[in-house]
Amino acid sequence: MRWHDEIDVASQRLHERAAHFLLETPLWKLRAPALGLNGAEGVEVWLKLEQLQVSGSFKARGMMNRLLANDIPASGVVVASGGNAGIATAAAARAIGVRCEVFLPGVSPEAKRARLRALGAEVVVVGDLYADALAACLARQRETGALLTHAYDQLEVVAGAGTLGREIEQQGGLPDSVLVSVGGGGLIAGLAAWFEQRSRVVALEPERAPTLFRAREACAPVDVEVSGVAADSLGARRIGAISWEITQRQVRDALVLPDDAIRAAQLWLWKELKLAVEPAAALPLAALQTGLYLPRASEKVCLIICGANVDPGTLA
Amino acid sequence: MRWHDEIDVASQRLHERAAHFLLETPLWKLRAPALGLNGAEGVEVWLKLEQLQVSGSFKARGMMNRLLANDIPASGVVVASGGNAGIATAAAARAIGVRCEVFLPGVSPEAKRARLRALGAEVVVVGDLYADALAACLARQRETGALLTHAYDQLEVVAGAGTLGREIEQQGGLPDSVLVSVGGGGLIAGLAAWFEQRSRVVALEPERAPTLFRAREACAPVDVEVSGVAADSLGARRIGAISWEITQRQVRDALVLPDDAIRAAQLWLWKELKLAVEPAAALPLAALQTGLYLPRASEKVCLIICGANVDPGTLA
Ligand SMILES: Cc1ncc(COP(=O)(O)O)c(C=O)c1O
Ligand SMILES: Cc1ncc(COP(=O)(O)O)c(C=O)c1O
Repeated sequence: MRWHDEIDVASQRLHERAAHFLLETPLWKLRAPALGLNGAEGVEVWLKLEQLQVSGSFKARGMMNRLLANDIPASGVVVASGGNAGIATAAAARAIGVRCEVFLPGVSPEAKRARLRALGAEVVVVGDLYADALAACLARQRETGALLTHAYDQLEVVAGAGTLGREIEQQGGLPDSVLVSVGGGGLIAGLAAWFEQRSRVVALEPERAPTLFRAREACAPVDVEVSGVAADSLGARRIGAISWEITQRQVRDALVLPDDAIRAAQLWLWKELKLAVEPAAALPLAALQTGLYLPRASEKVCLIICGANVDPGTLA
Repeated sequence: MRWHDEIDVASQRLHERAAHFLLETPLWKLRAPALGLNGAEGVEVWLKLEQLQVSGSFKARGMMNRLLANDIPASGVVVASGGNAGIATAAAARAIGVRCEVFLPGVSPEAKRARLRALGAEVVVVGDLYADALAACLARQRETGALLTHAYDQLEVVAGAGTLGREIEQQGGLPDSVLVSVGGGGLIAGLAAWFEQRSRVVALEPERAPTLFRAREACAPVDVEVSGVAADSLGARRIGAISWEITQRQVRDALVLPDDAIRAAQLWLWKELKLAVEPAAALPLAALQTGLYLPRASEKVCLIICGANVDPGTLA
């Protein structure tokens, strides 16, 4: 099945079976000066306010799609992530009434564990590092046959992310360009698969977590070191195989941004527009505000505001 | 001129002359369960996200309308308010390039003064109490002929607030009811003047700042003691004369809410929907979540999310 069809199927499934879980998030059309961009009067900037999605990020789409597309055994669902993928999996599992186990390493902060427990998940703390938690998660999956959700490298997860592109087009028509941040690449894969060449999809990464950028240099997915302000959500070590395949065909530009520009855009969004978002959601605006991405006159640029799982105290 | 016409005029003026200042804020339609309201499946809840308005509140509409409707002398604009009315006046004055003096008492916090200065306003600190600052502001106005903006009791300010109602109707059609918080009453006056009896406009006040509620008991505007979580923005001491006149004709229900319900709804909006708002903006949801306002089956209820001037650290 072509990707477009996969996304149509996901969208219909989610509408029919998860309408009381997922939200249709607002698409907010502004003129460039409202975003502090001077000398760009004719440019339209669309903000897709997906940080308002249930679970605080777009991940709820992919995770719910993964759960609904599969038979779920009595052992339920397993995932290894204390971030947005874990939260979204736990929220989706609770909404459909199945068990959810989340594997986390000893270094994970207590606040994340508490949040997952509040969502009804069982939190299993194993080993010291993320790799230990992942290994334990995979072992459990083999042992019990539970359904595994992956943060970005599964067909249903990518198709679920693609429904975001479909929703944008339905709400506002086709933008000329779509600026989106990249971690493991599930989000950009879904969007690029939806828009194909009809809109120009631009990949944005922190300099200190450049999974797609380095893969392009190496002509293949490679492990990278990750750190910096957005490592929490863009800290995948390597671009996913599905995303690599799709982005090679559909995405021309992969740009990187310094942490200080990301942080400045994040603070700007709160101070000037009262949007409270996490660093990962600020890369699109940072690309415009720094001039890294320069829209042409009268371009319609869509910024994916992808998440708001942030301690609000860090916005002041 | 009838109020409806005043609001049409304000709306046209603002579109023609302040389109690069004011924003059209999103109207977000949700089903009641998404707001944590169970047993109300058929109810539609519309969130008017006016906390995203320039200056962080709806006040920018009225203040800009006041400025554009008058000739502004070289002495500029004066206002006595360290809250949203002061911020909105300073922002509007800067946008059209006129001087702005803001009078504040000694008790006003340095953070507010700094914010006003950052907007280019001259901050004049006088006396100890708010009444001292107001007296000095009025004296300056008489001395220099500067244009005075009032937080809620001027025709242009009320008409500016009314453009919010007009925008809601244009974006989403007529809601059955509109839930809105009341301080001095400018916001509700504008909305009630726009919707007249076509939608049921419901006044919501904190128990500890019940200006409209007490005026109704006394059959006339009276001074009330104000305190509590929303005193910052709903802390007017007495309902305005314009608002009293309009609400007596157009608004049947004036309900009061305890501080803890307001605060709970404010925290809920951040935790579950990632909307960072100030307490004043949480009264409409508090009225639904406490059951103080009970919509009928399939009612379309519009909640006015009116402001986000809040220290984000208080949301955690
Ligand atoms: C808020 C947010 N934005 C962007 C991303 C990146 O998504 P992906 O890993 O699919 O590239 C994530 C991943 O967790 C995220 O949580
Ligand atoms: C955020 C917010 N909401 C509501 C109000 C109440 O408006 P009014 O005084 O017009 O009743 C104010 C007033 O400052 C406000 O700032």
